[in-house]
Amino acid sequence: MSLKPRDTLRSAFSPLINALQAIAHWRGIEALLSWDQETVMPSGAIESRAEQSALVATYAHQQLASDRFRGLLGEWVALETGKPYPQDLNALESAFLREVYRDWQLATALPATFVETFTKAKARSQHAWIEARKKDAFSDFAPHLESIVALTTQRADYLSQGRGTYETLLDEYEPGMTLAMLNPVLDDLKSETLRLMAKIRRQPERPIFPLHEKEWDVQKQWEFSRMVLQDMGFSSEHGRLDASAHPFSTHIHPTDVRITTRVRSHDFLEGLSSTMHECGHALYEQGLDTTYFGTPLCAAGSFGLHESQSRFWENGIGKHRAFWEYYFPKLCALFPEVIRESDFESFLAAQNQVKPSLIRVQADELTYNLHIVIRYELETALFSGALSVKDLPGAWREKYQSYLGVSSPTDADGVMQDVHWSCGYFGYFPTYSLGNLYAAMLLDRIGQDLDLAAQLRKGQLLPIREWLRTHIHSVGRQLSTQTLIHQLTGSSLSSESFVHYLESRHLS
Amino acid sequence: MSLKPRDTLRSAFSPLINALQAIAHWRGIEALLSWDQETVMPSGAIESRAEQSALVATYAHQQLASDRFRGLLGEWVALETGKPYPQDLNALESAFLREVYRDWQLATALPATFVETFTKAKARSQHAWIEARKKDAFSDFAPHLESIVALTTQRADYLSQGRGTYETLLDEYEPGMTLAMLNPVLDDLKSETLRLMAKIRRQPERPIFPLHEKEWDVQKQWEFSRMVLQDMGFSSEHGRLDASAHPFSTHIHPTDVRITTRVRSHDFLEGLSSTMHECGHALYEQGLDTTYFGTPLCAAGSFGLHESQSRFWENGIGKHRAFWEYYFPKLCALFPEVIRESDFESFLAAQNQVKPSLIRVQADELTYNLHIVIRYELETALFSGALSVKDLPGAWREKYQSYLGVSSPTDADGVMQDVHWSCGYFGYFPTYSLGNLYAAMLLDRIGQDLDLAAQLRKGQLLPIREWLRTHIHSVGRQLSTQTLIHQLTGSSLSSESFVHYLESRHLS
Repeated sequence: MSLKPRDTLRSAFSPLINALQAIAHWRGIEALLSWDQETVMPSGAIESRAEQSALVATYAHQQLASDRFRGLLGEWVALETGKPYPQDLNALESAFLREVYRDWQLATALPATFVETFTKAKARSQHAWIEARKKDAFSDFAPHLESIVALTTQRADYLSQGRGTYETLLDEYEPGMTLAMLNPVLDDLKSETLRLMAKIRRQPERPIFPLHEKEWDVQKQWEFSRMVLQDMGFSSEHGRLDASAHPFSTHIHPTDVRITTRVRSHDFLEGLSSTMHECGHALYEQGLDTTYFGTPLCAAGSFGLHESQSRFWENGIGKHRAFWEYYFPKLCALFPEVIRESDFESFLAAQNQVKPSLIRVQADELTYNLHIVIRYELETALFSGALSVKDLPGAWREKYQSYLGVSSPTDADGVMQDVHWSCGYFGYFPTYSLGNLYAAMLLDRIGQDLDLAAQLRKGQLLPIREWLRTHIHSVGRQLSTQTLIHQLTGSSLSSESFVHYLESRHLS
Repeated sequence: MSLKPRDTLRSAFSPLINALQAIAHWRGIEALLSWDQETVMPSGAIESRAEQSALVATYAHQQLASDRFRGLLGEWVALETGKPYPQDLNALESAFLREVYRDWQLATALPATFVETFTKAKARSQHAWIEARKKDAFSDFAPHLESIVALTTQRADYLSQGRGTYETLLDEYEPGMTLAMLNPVLDDLKSETLRLMAKIRRQPERPIFPLHEKEWDVQKQWEFSRMVLQDMGFSSEHGRLDASAHPFSTHIHPTDVRITTRVRSHDFLEGLSSTMHECGHALYEQGLDTTYFGTPLCAAGSFGLHESQSRFWENGIGKHRAFWEYYFPKLCALFPEVIRESDFESFLAAQNQVKPSLIRVQADELTYNLHIVIRYELETALFSGALSVKDLPGAWREKYQSYLGVSSPTDADGVMQDVHWSCGYFGYFPTYSLGNLYAAMLLDRIGQDLDLAAQLRKGQLLPIREWLRTHIHSVGRQLSTQTLIHQLTGSSLSSESFVHYLESRHLS
């Protein structure tokens, strides 16, 4: 089965597509301003850059919200309902109009005065979060967070179309995802994770290579990262790899996708994992079908699906035994003073070590999902009114103690560890776990077409990228993520594949 | 005397200034897109970048040419004549309105259809120039150049306000400059240059250090360049230095001024000279008065004045004996295997070697001006109708033989060596020589306030930057270049200072 669209868009859409392409270019310019700021911009330019970014963001938004655009879209769909006028749309055209309408609606549902109020509150709140975190003073941050929760609720009201607040927020990041679908999956994931953790604790301890006690030459780490990046099929003609304080990926255009990583001498794995993670994101963007540039048909399906691509490569491939059967000898040759061929098993064990911890972004792939579950439970409680902001730190500690058996001595490394809430990103966290679940389902599915272990043992990563490009990347938003996953795997979203994957990787 | 403005702009100008600031930010974004393209952009992104740049350039232009801007400006000046309405303008306000009106007029004088025609013709012509240059086939380029000359003439007609074609073109780059002022100065410069060349030929030959026969470690060259850059007072908080195929400077904002240089192992001097040249441009931009950001009061006076700043540093300072009395020991310490303290005189002689050559950008500071004079004479002949495009190569050869005594075997390294004409940059070349003349006048003038040689011997470059900042950079377009030069030096533009400078540097 190939999902490559055989349908085409009728030429009468051209005026609408041209407008969308211009908006997409403006978004690309916005992305470049941001990339430049995070990587090479002189520090003293921060104020002028803020002005420039605001001008571009505002202008791009104005284009989509303009009367002109309304007129172009209104020729094809009823603006009140989104129902298309033509009776003879092919599947591609239907998807095109459905998704353009969705974007337009999101862009125009909020009154301009509300957007301005919320934007300013977010800026103040993020600043307060930074300061409160430095001083470990949650009470300084709390009034701001209360305001963000209230404004986020109001925002969801504008967008809800009859749905509940949290479901509305979730849908922005993961279109089509409902609480009815998500709740049982996360419940299941939580209990299975706790079960696996208990099992792993009872396993005999394996020798663990002391990754962090070694000095890994930074230049050689870059060399290794670049080699893997090239093997994965990252196009350097259409992208770059640079250094930054926090790894990220930026898409300026499918022909200009830039990623960054962080390489530190005492941690080999962090640099490579970040590179593979961001490269997974980048391959998605480089693999979009540029025939439809500017339209939702040349855009990623959802945040969860994007994350599935990064986690697929970072963990699914990058910590696979067969992957290291090929790369480990190269690693030993590059770092002969640090690691030897006989360290293979302990090196692999170090990569796949499971250990409950305080900080989400440093968590292993198993306990990671408990961090997500905790945030999800707290977010839903906040928005249902069952929990108030002032009670957050206590609830946080309780859940960390209960699920992970750890407790942070500070709120800075507890409830204030992530930036998300200060910016109003509620409903975002679940997509991290969804990414893990989709990735495992795709790993199972790709195994029907490719002998993955055999490919990895030969260092042949390109067929894997090709498979993902054909079946995921080039599809864009033609299908919803849930439809795509179902079409590909024959199953609806569940934690089954992921749990099997965890068992086979972490239980001997 | 300080030219720091003590006047201020009345607050009633705010709506106009806000509009100008937004336009300046858009121009900054345009500059960033260009910088990125020349330094770090993945090669495969060239098409999307062209789209992005065109969108920003068009939008920035539309802002200035908009009815809204017309309305804002029309509150203060008569749009037909530029005459300001208020009777009580201070000097700063007069300059502000005069220069804003000038920019608005230039931006709105050309019909949109003409701009489009010209833009497309330039793109075709530049492409044809690249191809014809590869094949050394001037006849392939000639029809495009004919079209560019015709369109440039038409363009000047729109802008002329009664002036001649060439004077109109010249005025765009060097506001206020007339042929009546320029002709005698360039005539004088030409005859003095020929006289000095003859004198230098008769001088006994000095030992010349074989700069090009040595291998200069590229990393150490960067180190040296960065040291000098810092000593010159380039702010790394508000700028960057990078590598590129051709050195250039980009101003994104006075707080974000980026320069590039080219460092090659067989040529130490090219790298350092380029760095100092571009840094001279950058110091001008970093030294603008940001109080007036967005307005012409925070913008460079003219192309010639800009070039004076780069040439001041590149040649006036960078090839000064006292400069090297400080830096030469450092150079020897950095490259002990290449150069020794005893090579001082021959190294200085190598820097100040005069030798007629074919290629303008490689010429020494003396013969350089003959390259400019040749282009100037050919340009004026083209636009007066005295010379046709098809006769250009012959006229070129004749003048090179006559003035410089050299002859290019190809048109690629002859009449087609510069990109300027293919893009319609007629009237631009004279500003290169004007830069040399202004720089020499400023060198004379600064000597009244600072003991330049004594400063240089101690490596104290900062007081020089401060002098330039106070007397040139911070003035912006408050004064025309000719007024500023006259106010500072008490003299009108002439080649006298430059000729004295050349004599003292090149005749022993």
